Amino acid sequence: MGLGPGGEEGVTAQARRALDRAQVVLGYRTYLEQARPWLEGKEMISSGMTRELDRAARALELAGRGRVVALVSGGDPGIYAMAAVVFELARDRGLPLGPGGLAVSVVPGVPAVAAAAALLGAPLSHDFACVSLSDRLTPWELIQRRLEAAAAADFVLALYNPKSKGRPWQYGRALEIVSGHRQPDTPVGIVSRAGRAGQEINLTDLARAPGAPVDMQTMVIIGNSQSFCFQGHMVTPRGYLGKYGGERRNGD
Amino acid sequence: MGLGPGGEEGVTAQARRALDRAQVVLGYRTYLEQARPWLEGKEMISSGMTRELDRAARALELAGRGRVVALVSGGDPGIYAMAAVVFELARDRGLPLGPGGLAVSVVPGVPAVAAAAALLGAPLSHDFACVSLSDRLTPWELIQRRLEAAAAADFVLALYNPKSKGRPWQYGRALEIVSGHRQPDTPVGIVSRAGRAGQEINLTDLARAPGAPVDMQTMVIIGNSQSFCFQGHMVTPRGYLGKYGGERRNGD
Repeated sequence: MGLGPGGEEGVTAQARRALDRAQVVLGYRTYLEQARPWLEGKEMISSGMTRELDRAARALELAGRGRVVALVSGGDPGIYAMAAVVFELARDRGLPLGPGGLAVSVVPGVPAVAAAAALLGAPLSHDFACVSLSDRLTPWELIQRRLEAAAAADFVLALYNPKSKGRPWQYGRALEIVSGHRQPDTPVGIVSRAGRAGQEINLTDLARAPGAPVDMQTMVIIGNSQSFCFQGHMVTPRGYLGKYGGERRNGD
Repeated sequence: MGLGPGGEEGVTAQARRALDRAQVVLGYRTYLEQARPWLEGKEMISSGMTRELDRAARALELAGRGRVVALVSGGDPGIYAMAAVVFELARDRGLPLGPGGLAVSVVPGVPAVAAAAALLGAPLSHDFACVSLSDRLTPWELIQRRLEAAAAADFVLALYNPKSKGRPWQYGRALEIVSGHRQPDTPVGIVSRAGRAGQEINLTDLARAPGAPVDMQTMVIIGNSQSFCFQGHMVTPRGYLGKYGGERRNGD
């Protein structure tokens, strides 16, 4: 289940009810802390960021013993998060799901990309692609091919996991690839810790984006050829005023 | 602001508060009906599906006269929805935003694509692209180019607005394009009216997808080369079990 971007504000009624029903709540430390006010009396099992498989295995094991389990993700559980890991593991172990087996349901949440976009204005309002820059489980060649393709076809691009201590160069390389297809003044919105303590919003452009501080808690949204900035907001037009594909007009 | 997929369950606390604070609530008829139980005593202005510009203009006009206005979208307001229209119009009219001008903020919601994905399982768990098949405001050539690029680079693809009475052929053409790059047994998840009356979930594959009934209330999610079906769920693996990019294993 997804807790949304952070804090009580972004949680859906459905997610609150799922937490209320749960006997055991599992999750990455930061997200469990976020939900702590609503978890009184429940068993909580927190673990580190890279322990996804362990967490999913533990959730399945406890559910198999009849406990009502909530496995929490920040944002949406289906976007670079835990839902797939649960299904992958269930398949690997041949666990039956549904009637007669484990009852699994996915509770969606406001994804990090939508939370970041809302803080920036409306940068995702035309076709967009999400790409994670983490090459821990995906070959960099494939990530690069996707960046090339999305940039060439003028998708708005949302970059997840742009940089970590162990992956310092992928973010710069991604911006280089996009710069082969977009103007240097293309708007770039950078949001860190949306809705959480230490939230930062940085509206810049493709030429200056390489120097911006980013980490694993940062979402980077690169505009398409029509995106513009207007009074501190980043916007990708839907095209109601003049046909889409017309001349780009300068904002601000 | 976004109401999420439908019904009270999917609304965030932040969205509920925004509705509570509003004096006037504007929106497409279907979404306003969805929110009606919480709108007692408020002025409601509903309009038809294609009246986006009128609605945004009305919202800006009322806000300019000092009213507290909520302009509602289903799902997330920043993804093929109303947020961008407001900013486009404000720019076009030279309206000042922020201190001294209109205070505009975007309240995110659970997007239709995340709601559909949760009902299917976890199909969006790797890089994905959203493409609207509506060529009302976007040239079909550009839509086609994006479909080609996303399919060739093995993105999971989420198709918004697949078909309407006036646009009968774009959905079939889009599937043809993707079929040039994916196996016929690639999982395709089709969800109509997620979280609303008449919800339908159809898990099929690329070969059979052209025959499935779809309309403007339908989300179509096409798996990447690694996506699999498992006991009625559609899943795109994150790659924890075996490196991503390995052999596709057959599920079910």
